[in-house]
Formats: sequence, structure tokens, C-alpha cells
Amino acid sequence: MEIARRVYRSYGFSPIDTPALEYLEILLGKGGEETDRQLYKFQDHGGRWVALRFDLTVPFARFAAEHINQLGIPLKRYQIGTVWRGENPQRGRYREFVQCDFDTIGTKSLAADIETALVINDLLEAIGFQHFTIRINSRLVLSGILEHLGLEEKAVPILRALDKLAKVGPSQVLKEIEASGVAPEKAQDFLERVTSASSQGSNHEVLQALEVAVGSSRAGQEGVANLREVLTGVEAAGIPADRVRLDPSIARGLDYYTGTVYETFLSAAPEIGSVCSGGRYDNLAALYTDQELPGVGASLGLDRLLAAMEKLGMVPSAVTPASVFVPYFDPEHFHDYLRICSGLRAYGLNVDFYPEPKKLSHQLRYADRRGFPVAVILGSEEFRSGVAKVKDLRKGLETTVPLDAEYHKLREAIEAILCGETPPAAE
Amino acid sequence: MEIARRVYRSYGFSPIDTPALEYLEILLGKGGEETDRQLYKFQDHGGRWVALRFDLTVPFARFAAEHINQLGIPLKRYQIGTVWRGENPQRGRYREFVQCDFDTIGTKSLAADIETALVINDLLEAIGFQHFTIRINSRLVLSGILEHLGLEEKAVPILRALDKLAKVGPSQVLKEIEASGVAPEKAQDFLERVTSASSQGSNHEVLQALEVAVGSSRAGQEGVANLREVLTGVEAAGIPADRVRLDPSIARGLDYYTGTVYETFLSAAPEIGSVCSGGRYDNLAALYTDQELPGVGASLGLDRLLAAMEKLGMVPSAVTPASVFVPYFDPEHFHDYLRICSGLRAYGLNVDFYPEPKKLSHQLRYADRRGFPVAVILGSEEFRSGVAKVKDLRKGLETTVPLDAEYHKLREAIEAILCGETPPAAE
Repeated sequence: MEIARRVYRSYGFSPIDTPALEYLEILLGKGGEETDRQLYKFQDHGGRWVALRFDLTVPFARFAAEHINQLGIPLKRYQIGTVWRGENPQRGRYREFVQCDFDTIGTKSLAADIETALVINDLLEAIGFQHFTIRINSRLVLSGILEHLGLEEKAVPILRALDKLAKVGPSQVLKEIEASGVAPEKAQDFLERVTSASSQGSNHEVLQALEVAVGSSRAGQEGVANLREVLTGVEAAGIPADRVRLDPSIARGLDYYTGTVYETFLSAAPEIGSVCSGGRYDNLAALYTDQELPGVGASLGLDRLLAAMEKLGMVPSAVTPASVFVPYFDPEHFHDYLRICSGLRAYGLNVDFYPEPKKLSHQLRYADRRGFPVAVILGSEEFRSGVAKVKDLRKGLETTVPLDAEYHKLREAIEAILCGETPPAAE
Repeated sequence: MEIARRVYRSYGFSPIDTPALEYLEILLGKGGEETDRQLYKFQDHGGRWVALRFDLTVPFARFAAEHINQLGIPLKRYQIGTVWRGENPQRGRYREFVQCDFDTIGTKSLAADIETALVINDLLEAIGFQHFTIRINSRLVLSGILEHLGLEEKAVPILRALDKLAKVGPSQVLKEIEASGVAPEKAQDFLERVTSASSQGSNHEVLQALEVAVGSSRAGQEGVANLREVLTGVEAAGIPADRVRLDPSIARGLDYYTGTVYETFLSAAPEIGSVCSGGRYDNLAALYTDQELPGVGASLGLDRLLAAMEKLGMVPSAVTPASVFVPYFDPEHFHDYLRICSGLRAYGLNVDFYPEPKKLSHQLRYADRRGFPVAVILGSEEFRSGVAKVKDLRKGLETTVPLDAEYHKLREAIEAILCGETPPAAE
């Protein structure tokens, strides 16, 4: 969450929080039948029906409709918040879970679509991933193919079916498309155009295949041009070429997407599904306001990502937010400990002082469990000589420094360890 | 919230989150009748009664009881979370609000009591307050006075009455104490000992008055000694002497406090009440475990603090998390904008690029509304000459720098403005 905040803020997204509880009528009917059924709802003390939000998008749409004139556009907001769904818990799926959304609303510019991909890239890199693919498509391209085949009116069931391609395979998707009243050969043609474009070697070849697939559809041609612009933009911004992949089979299940759509797959854990997904919508808040609010955004699925990170051994088992551990040896010098710890904190170091002069083994067990990188050891001997021992707890190396003015040498030794350098005098 | 996180972490407190929903029986009867009545409760899809937490302490007690053996002691945790109470909203009091708690559990050492005061001090300083008072008392001192007067058995109603002293005045407090069955002259004696000690000029004189007030009570004497140790400790750590004030009339309403108690008042907004309160408890998790879990902690009341900050004009009306605004002038150079923005972000700057090449007045209105301190202006002319204009948006000053390798000069000019220096070449 800290990393998501940092990355979102580095692009100028501001935090906006909305209440967890909304009036029931705001949430009902916005996410489909299943979501309605999963709502945690009850009557408040005034007898009004309220419910816990099931995502961050619907409350944000309500909020944006209410406040957009005051806030002005474009509006770039992020929100990290808990959402609730009364479903059966599974690995990486819980009844109470956290979403990390970011959206730019009030602009149709592809600059915002490009930025969405950049944010996803920076986010996953900052979390520690090197190998992942942002799969990009445009709903306009899919609409174009449908238009070319005269299937516009079946767009909703066809795209919902296509969205399940990776999960259920092509024959099941075909079955589902046909079930919505599409002729088998038309369904076949649609799916072949999508999958044959998808299977091209390079993004450039995918674009060429799509140009053919959309035929004379203007929407489709616009979609292809948009994808080309998004691709060249993310490349210009410096994203490694193999990170972004055009994939015409990416549809996203939600009906409100109208332009670029995004899914993000970890190379080491593709089975976990997309960890960061989103897309462009023409009008997020149509249900709540007459004003047009186009936008684009995506959401990091934190619990799913954590499940993947646990599997990949990327979640350290013991972490303290403090880098410096100060064991408590000598009660005579209690006030000196307090002074030194406050002094180091004033320089931006996070310092944890053990609260009791317990046996060293106790204190070291604590330090070990919490995973501090550095210990500053101050015993009676050190106080007498006006020095401190600085210990690299990961390497087991130790150095002795004088307690000079402003703890200059002490801070230098601590920072050398935190930067991974070996302290000058090793034991 | 960002500041609270930073300060808590600087002392080694780790974040722990618990679910917003708990089984009803975990929460019922823990906060008194009023809290029970205010609970938002309902049956989940499996027919079990659940409720939204009304504070962070009770769920943490449940969590600590369950996991303490695995986590080890001392355990320093912070939690910033939403809580719900179905009460009538007032200024600074809402049905859904945020608490910022920090606690050290598993130690009886006064080092943790001292640290609690240090954290409160650093927190308010970091938020931007200079003038505030941390009022400290010890429940042991109050117990000592009660013991000395033979009133131990009436401790709960007497301390609950005393807690309202600032709000309702002494005669109302006396009435309430008497209503619990205490003889008027005893009630008078108790209140006089407390208030006359409170009204002493210096902390040292308060301690002297308390030594008399607790008579021969051992608990009372221990309380006085503890307060002395806490006071000298916070002084040794460098807190300005007028920030911490002994106040024997501070009782805290909650029954579970047993040692040091804390309240924090802003000099410019005392009427808002305590913005950060807490205390030491002998056994937080007694209801859920047999293991003894003593601890000490406090909670920042974020909504109350914000109400005070709004009143004092401390909340900026428009804020962006980005310091650098890059207006979009020249579509020909779209990719150059992307490259430069990414380049600056890679050096840790937060950069917001306007998504459309709209009229300058539009873009400047956006920048003004959001409150960016710096704009980097890149028009056709600048791209041609290989320079950028860097504008200090607060001072209206502008400087021109070359777009050299790694944007060295550009970053230098931006950082000069962010540090409040005047750029070298003023217009």
C-alpha cells in the first residue's frame, strides 16, 4: 500500500476517500445480480437501508457526480480501501479485501491511457517484479470487428464470453456466443479474427492483423490507431519493449469499458490471473449526473498480488519499519539511551529502543524475530569510552565509532550498513 | 495519516490491520451500554451476527490474544482504521471516522510510558503544531488518594465523574460522586486534593502536593514515583519543558486504564478537547486470553484534529501530491514530454503532465486549483533551443535552464524552488 501510494502520487494522483457505507440504492444494480446478492446490507438506526461498498468505482462515480464542479477536471485520484463481498472465500479471495484504484477522469486524451500503462509498470517494478506483461487491447477494436461482421447488437454477451477465453478455452467461448443467438460460422469468424491477431509475433504484426480484422469499420480503425499511439507512447516513456503486449482477446467483463483495456500478468505466476486491470470508460458517472465524465483507470488487486508474492517467496516473514535496534543494557544510562535514540530519529532514522534491561538473549531474540538490519550497542563500557558499537545484523560484522557531536560518525556507520557497504573495521 | 504512519514507524511500531467486521459477541459489552446501542450489526449470508468495529482497541485485544505467541513481546503496533458508531453526527464527530492508534504491549517498563509521550509530541510537531500540552497523570495516584480516603470501592463511579471535570465543572462532579453513595465531605476532600495539586505552578510542585495527597498509600507513592520518572525521561529525550504538564484531574473515562494516562490539548483550540489520548493498562486482552498482556498506548482522533486544523486555517484548500506541473503546449513533442516526465520521476520527483494541449488559461487554472509549487514549461521555442523554463508558481519567478544529460540543471532548478531558494535568474 505504501508503494502504491508513492507511485500514484509520483504521477500527481491525489487521495480521495469515500465512506465504506453507502445508501443501498447507490450500490444496487451496479455490479450485476451476483454482486447484488453478495452485498452486506442492513438498516441503520434511522431505519434507512445501507450497504458496505463492493468496489471503489461505484462510490467514486457517485462522489465524482456530486463534487466534480468543485474539484475541476481533469481529476486524478487514487483510493486504497476495503471492500466487502459476501462470497465463499478462496485462496487470494476474501469477503473483506483491499483494492488500490487510480483513475483520471474528465479527459478523452490518449495521454491518460498511456499514463495508465506507465503507472501499472512503475507500480509492479516498485513492488519488486521484473518479469510481467501488461496486456492491452481496445474495446473499439473489438467493436470494429463486431461491426464488420454485423454483430454489434450482440456485443455485450459476446465480449462477456470472450473475457473467459483464457479460463475456459475457445470451444466453450464459442458455445457461449452461440447461446446468445449468434450463428456458429459468425461466432467462429469473430473468434478467429481475434485469436489469429493475438497470436502474431510482434505488436506491429498484431496491429497489421487488426487492420484487416476490423475491415471498413471506422470505430475499429480508430481503435487500431489508438492502440498504435498508446504503444509508441509507452515506448517513448522508456518502458522495456517486452513489457507491453497487444492482445485483442483481452475484453474485460465490465460493460462500461469503451476504449483501451488493461490486464497485467506476472510471468512467474500467470495462473493467479491479472493483478492489475482496468480500462477507459466514456461515462463513469452516467447513473448519477448528466455531465459527461469520461476517464481511464486501473485497480491493483492487493490480495491476489500478495497470494502471488507469498508463492514466490517475496514476502519477508519478519519486518520492522525501524532500521536501527538499540538494546537496553545499562539502567544507569537510561536517559542517555533516550537522548541518543531521539537524536538519531531527528536525522530521519527509524529507531526501536528495547524497553527493558533484560537478558541479552531475550533482546537478541526480539531483534531477530523483527528483522532489524542494524543494532547500536551501548553498554557501560561504551558509555565510559564515549563510543558506540554498530553491528550489521545481517552480516554479523561490527564497528566501533565515537559518539561525536550530532552523532555524525554513528549515523555514517549506520548508513553504510543500510546501503550495503561493509563497515570499515570488521571483526 | 501519512505523518502518523511516518512518526509511528520512526519508533519501530509496525502496522497491523484487523477486519472491520467482527463477530458480534467479540464487540458486545466491551465499550459500555451506549456503545452496544450504537453498534452497526447484521446477520451475514451464513446467518451469523456480525458488527462493524466501534474502536480499534477491542479488535486488537482479540487479535493480540490470538497471535501474541507467534508475534512475541514486546509488540509495538500501530493501526489507522475506520470505525463506526451509530450516533448523532456533530462538528468533528461522525458515524464513520478514523482512529490512529499505537500501542506497546507485553511490557510494564516505564520506558514505554515515556516513549508514548515522545510519540505524541513528535506526532503533533510533525503535523505542524508548536503550542500544545500533553497532560499526564497516573491512575495509581488517583487510586492512592482514594485509598487514603477509604474510597477504593467507589473508584469506578468517582473516576468517571472526575473525567468530566473540564466539561461540567466541580459542583456537578461532586453531585455525581455523591450520587454514587459517597459522603459529601469525603467527595469534597477527594476533589480538593486533586484540584489543589493540579493548580500548582510547576510539575515539581504538583509532585510535592501529590506526595501529600496520597498519604501513606503505597499505590499512590508508586504513582508519584512513576510520574517523576516519566517526566525526567521525556525531559532527557529533549521535549520542551512546557509541553508536558502533570494534571491529577485527568482520569480518562475507560475503566481498563491502570497507570499513566495522557490527554493532549492544542493551545489554540482547547475547546475541541483532547486530540490524542491514551494510557497504560494492566491487561488489555483479559477477556480473550489467560496470558497477561500489559501495555500502554494512545490514539490520535483524526476527525477532531482536522476540525481544529480547519478552524486554525492549517488545512490547505488545494493540494496535489505532485510538486512539478508540466503543461502540454506542443503536440509535435508529445513523446519528449513523456520522456522528460519519466526522467524526472526516476529521480524521485512527483510530476503531473497535463493530458491535453488545451489553451494555456485552462491549464493554468488547473495548476492553480491544485496548488503546484513548480511548473516546467516546454513550448516549441524551448524544444528548439534545448532548454526548459522553470517557474516558481508561488513567487511568480522564472528561470531558464538547459535540458542537459540526466536533466541535471532542470532538477537543480526545481529543487531550489522546492527548498524555498530564489532561482538564480529572476524575471
